Amino acid sequence: MSGVILTLMVELSNLFTDHLYHFSKVFYLCVHAISGNTDGAVARESTERNCSSTPPYLPSTAVNTSLQLEELRVQMRAMNISAYIIPATDAHLSEYIAPRDARLAFMTGFTGSAGTAVVTLNKAALWTDSRYWVQAERQMDCNWELEKDVSISSVAQWLISEVPKGDEIGFDPFLFSLKTQEDYNINLESSDRSLKSITENLVDKVWKERPSVPPDSLTRLPDRVIQRTWQEKVEHIRTQMGDSPYKPTGLLLSALDETAWLFNMRGNDIPYNPFFYSYTLLTMDEIWLFLHMERVTEELKVYLNASCEGALCVQLKGYDTILDHLKNYVSRPGVKVWIGTEYTNYALYEVITPQDKLLTSSYSPVLTTKAVKDETEQQILRDAHVRDAVAVIQFLMWLEKTVPEGNQTELTAAEYVDKCRSKQKDSRGPSFGTISASGPNAALAHYSPTKETNRRLTVDEMYLVDSGGQYLDGTTDITRTVHWGKPTEMQKEAFTRVLMGNIEISRTIFPSGTRGVNMEMLGRRALWEVGLNYGHGTGHGVGNYFGVHEWPVGFQSNNIPFRAGMFTSIEPGYYKENDFGIRIEDVAVVVPVQTKYGNNYLTFDTVSLVPYDRKLIDTSLLSSEQLHFLNKYYETIRSLVGPELDNQGLGEEKDWMLRNTEPFAEIGSSASVSSSSLTLIALAVALLHNIV
Amino acid sequence: MSGVILTLMVELSNLFTDHLYHFSKVFYLCVHAISGNTDGAVARESTERNCSSTPPYLPSTAVNTSLQLEELRVQMRAMNISAYIIPATDAHLSEYIAPRDARLAFMTGFTGSAGTAVVTLNKAALWTDSRYWVQAERQMDCNWELEKDVSISSVAQWLISEVPKGDEIGFDPFLFSLKTQEDYNINLESSDRSLKSITENLVDKVWKERPSVPPDSLTRLPDRVIQRTWQEKVEHIRTQMGDSPYKPTGLLLSALDETAWLFNMRGNDIPYNPFFYSYTLLTMDEIWLFLHMERVTEELKVYLNASCEGALCVQLKGYDTILDHLKNYVSRPGVKVWIGTEYTNYALYEVITPQDKLLTSSYSPVLTTKAVKDETEQQILRDAHVRDAVAVIQFLMWLEKTVPEGNQTELTAAEYVDKCRSKQKDSRGPSFGTISASGPNAALAHYSPTKETNRRLTVDEMYLVDSGGQYLDGTTDITRTVHWGKPTEMQKEAFTRVLMGNIEISRTIFPSGTRGVNMEMLGRRALWEVGLNYGHGTGHGVGNYFGVHEWPVGFQSNNIPFRAGMFTSIEPGYYKENDFGIRIEDVAVVVPVQTKYGNNYLTFDTVSLVPYDRKLIDTSLLSSEQLHFLNKYYETIRSLVGPELDNQGLGEEKDWMLRNTEPFAEIGSSASVSSSSLTLIALAVALLHNIV
Repeated sequence: MSGVILTLMVELSNLFTDHLYHFSKVFYLCVHAISGNTDGAVARESTERNCSSTPPYLPSTAVNTSLQLEELRVQMRAMNISAYIIPATDAHLSEYIAPRDARLAFMTGFTGSAGTAVVTLNKAALWTDSRYWVQAERQMDCNWELEKDVSISSVAQWLISEVPKGDEIGFDPFLFSLKTQEDYNINLESSDRSLKSITENLVDKVWKERPSVPPDSLTRLPDRVIQRTWQEKVEHIRTQMGDSPYKPTGLLLSALDETAWLFNMRGNDIPYNPFFYSYTLLTMDEIWLFLHMERVTEELKVYLNASCEGALCVQLKGYDTILDHLKNYVSRPGVKVWIGTEYTNYALYEVITPQDKLLTSSYSPVLTTKAVKDETEQQILRDAHVRDAVAVIQFLMWLEKTVPEGNQTELTAAEYVDKCRSKQKDSRGPSFGTISASGPNAALAHYSPTKETNRRLTVDEMYLVDSGGQYLDGTTDITRTVHWGKPTEMQKEAFTRVLMGNIEISRTIFPSGTRGVNMEMLGRRALWEVGLNYGHGTGHGVGNYFGVHEWPVGFQSNNIPFRAGMFTSIEPGYYKENDFGIRIEDVAVVVPVQTKYGNNYLTFDTVSLVPYDRKLIDTSLLSSEQLHFLNKYYETIRSLVGPELDNQGLGEEKDWMLRNTEPFAEIGSSASVSSSSLTLIALAVALLHNIV
Repeated sequence: MSGVILTLMVELSNLFTDHLYHFSKVFYLCVHAISGNTDGAVARESTERNCSSTPPYLPSTAVNTSLQLEELRVQMRAMNISAYIIPATDAHLSEYIAPRDARLAFMTGFTGSAGTAVVTLNKAALWTDSRYWVQAERQMDCNWELEKDVSISSVAQWLISEVPKGDEIGFDPFLFSLKTQEDYNINLESSDRSLKSITENLVDKVWKERPSVPPDSLTRLPDRVIQRTWQEKVEHIRTQMGDSPYKPTGLLLSALDETAWLFNMRGNDIPYNPFFYSYTLLTMDEIWLFLHMERVTEELKVYLNASCEGALCVQLKGYDTILDHLKNYVSRPGVKVWIGTEYTNYALYEVITPQDKLLTSSYSPVLTTKAVKDETEQQILRDAHVRDAVAVIQFLMWLEKTVPEGNQTELTAAEYVDKCRSKQKDSRGPSFGTISASGPNAALAHYSPTKETNRRLTVDEMYLVDSGGQYLDGTTDITRTVHWGKPTEMQKEAFTRVLMGNIEISRTIFPSGTRGVNMEMLGRRALWEVGLNYGHGTGHGVGNYFGVHEWPVGFQSNNIPFRAGMFTSIEPGYYKENDFGIRIEDVAVVVPVQTKYGNNYLTFDTVSLVPYDRKLIDTSLLSSEQLHFLNKYYETIRSLVGPELDNQGLGEEKDWMLRNTEPFAEIGSSASVSSSSLTLIALAVALLHNIV
């Protein structure tokens, strides 16, 4: 498998920085390691461009962008703008984008997942962060400057120096969040250069071979994975609109998972996420669904009740007509449109005027409602995790057997875990690109993509695998770190302390409504005690056959408070530069818990069901409560995954699972102390009796 | 002692509400229990006004406000305003105010510490919260409506209904924070009523017997409590101004402790806080100090180098000339004034125009610098706590002896603790009104002031005492909860879990720069486990002969990250309605700690040195680490307070302290387990040998 893309998802959010306003992609960086080399790290070839030599040197990987730049500038002149900003996102501010939205890559040649390009009439520049600098130097030709400070103020500074006073800077408002637009505005303020919103994308005009919308038709979820029909969901959301003191008359849904959730539908337009291009405008008595209508089958039209105009009829409209319909709706007297500012693009926002026709919250009521899973969703998400555990157990056992033979690499392992999942019932592929990282690779949160990153797996290095699956009934995400040889004491201590962090969050009891950000230090505390820490966040929401990073649930400062029925990952880690990386990630559901005195308290119930590497656990560091928790967890794995392994006839895997979930001796707890002391006292007394 | 005011400081901030912008007073409510009754609770008299009876009924405590209202309306007509807003604060947004700033009380008769009054040409209304409703009904005459929703939007709503369209609403900008002004503005937006800033206070114009500025002269701190001279502090702050990328030319200091800190001076204008009325405008080459010049002695003039105009000369200006001087300074070309928005009043803010002459941060560099104590400040603040511990130990021993005799009450106890402190070296009085609360009184965070609240202290009730002292070298604040009889199991459990919270915060190790708000759940976790919690914050900064609630240090979401050298209180609690209240409060200093692997880690070192009530501690609930921490703390009390008790010849108190700091048996730890097990094994082996 050549050109496999390993995607390392790393939360960047600084625990100590408050007021983070951005959506998930900001926190989750994608590190691409393009590689087919299975022979371990080798010396790097000199494959980067050199634009200061004469003539300039370009590697074979560089893309000639002269033509598209020339054509774009023609468009720019026609619009009377002196610069054009090209972001890396799509109109739904999605974490992953479809090939047809890869405008940045088309214009620059650079295929990394994060960046901003700006083209003026005689210059062009790309801003991207340190993970991508080498890749950018390999893929871009000398038409492009590479800029390394990715802040908007840096881009604005460059614009001020390149764009003449009084001139305009164009941007596609569909690709800007409200926050992005505001940031540019603040930075350009009083510079006498202004932004010009151009709703027709200029790159699309010159991109002749732009991929079309995938022909895959949309699907509705089968009844067995649904508790609430779309009609019930619509009524529920309308109730929330009616209950709002601000009396919105309409709700605009822009994020792709909002519409998919509301109608219990899925698609295949975006990598890893089962979404389809869409918007919804829901009013108290109408429903407008904007999508590519040719993809809607007759059966779906019946399902959506699409041939009428009543309160529970879905009126289908063309995807590209959203702006006109929204303008038209806003022009009606007395209307007020509710939007979630985190996922609404600036194009839609700017047509909702005057201000008193607008109602904003960070997240739409669909996103906050969706965050709490109903009983069916909870049950099927738990079920999916049981099958997912079978796949991961199968994979870990296979590694244990085959790694010592010396033929496995990060890439073959990533391939194998996907294969294991694909054999499970209702599998729908991976939920993100598997992170399969051995030794020092696992420690590189920001490592640049090189062909040399692929490492052979050996008994001498720790190995970290972060992977997940999409299933018709749920989305999974799990990280295990293992060692097939003899770990060092430091590795054992670090692993154990990461595990202690995972356990401390998982077992904590807290009042309903507590914010994750105010508890996440429990994931770090055992590390802090010995001066260790990790530089990423501690967890994110997870969906039901949805996004694997499902906002707004999690431990970040802009996540919403925890309520029963939310699912979140819990994923502390530790990374030692040039040496190894550890992360232990489980998904857990927030559940009510009985307490001695109070009501309305919650805790976590772990739904990922795969044992941790025993040889990395130093039980002497664990408190008796932690040890007890671990043994209870292993009991749960046995009782839930055991029968599934039996069902699937996986006897060897079952034995492996049983071996790896043997209870640990619970020494050190006061209970065990008294009982062992009592034994000794009994012995002493018996001996005394013998003497007498 | 009649008319003693018990002030219960209760943090109100909700742990789960982010984005709190207000200053300390918002979080610390003052509950006044005006009482001279020492016979326990008795039935309440009907002493409230009844304005709907004919004729209206007024109790003898009501104040006739007709005259002042009439005179104020004359002033209002002259200014052409239809309403006038009267807040409860002073021009420095102080937590406590001087009598001459009690304008709200003069106008309304109501003497509670929180409220807002609004007078129109024919109506008058007071907004205050539930703690004060009864008091307001007793003190106000029928000129005044009582409004119970204290939000600014409620006041604005009332204004919109009472003030004719197009009319103006006057306010004294010296008494509004930026945030208050902004909130009124937002709420009045598009109502066609606007705010009018009137810098001459209209209440002062009609308040003929307004108390004058206290004649007390100002003092400079003696050298023995100072490490940095005022000149060094000025240079240090100027360095920070020079280092700022925004290049401020001047720094305006508005909070009273800012100026007092900068010049190492103190005064006596505000209850409990050793501050004096002042502002400072510090530029890169000038220093202007605004104060009541007649109070400055010749010696102080020399100290301040007040007879020149150079960079290290303090130019003394009249307190009331600040606005003119500031305007004058702002009119100079190229100047930029730095202000801390949390403590600058709107009057000063509004003259700093245009915007590019203004630089804002939440807190001025003086407040953030002051937050980190220098070595001398740390040492003397520790020393003050040793003497304070002697006073509190003396007090607790006295209670233990005299309460069973049946003659002590909350009031006599409060009086006695003040007396104990006053005997200590360098005592400068209490740092706030002592909270002395027995039984159910201790559980009332919001209780209304009544004459009946004073309770006799008995061996049947728990007793909570929260008190603190001002000393020349430091400010203290400590809470202990005790029981002189037989506590219930629930009381013991709750107390122990509050103690566990105090210990868990105190012993935690964290990276420098961690925010208190992200750690404070450690103070709650042991309570949460059994479904208990508390409704206030977990701690606040403490000063060196300064405010007892010294911002911006603490565990709130708008506090700054912890650095070594900061002092904070740590004060979890538990309150059972109608039954009892528990709070365990210590002051701790943030100190560097050696860790196994990392650098730049911190922990807390507790400087309050008074033992906890042993009979309320259930050691079986404590982890071995907690028990060990407690024993180490008791060792510290013995080693630091023991010699001081000896020095002061307090033998009986020393014995009491030693009895109360006996080490607890550290059972349950694996270390002690092995050793006791080993003893038993040795015994068994010995016996076996005997047999053989």
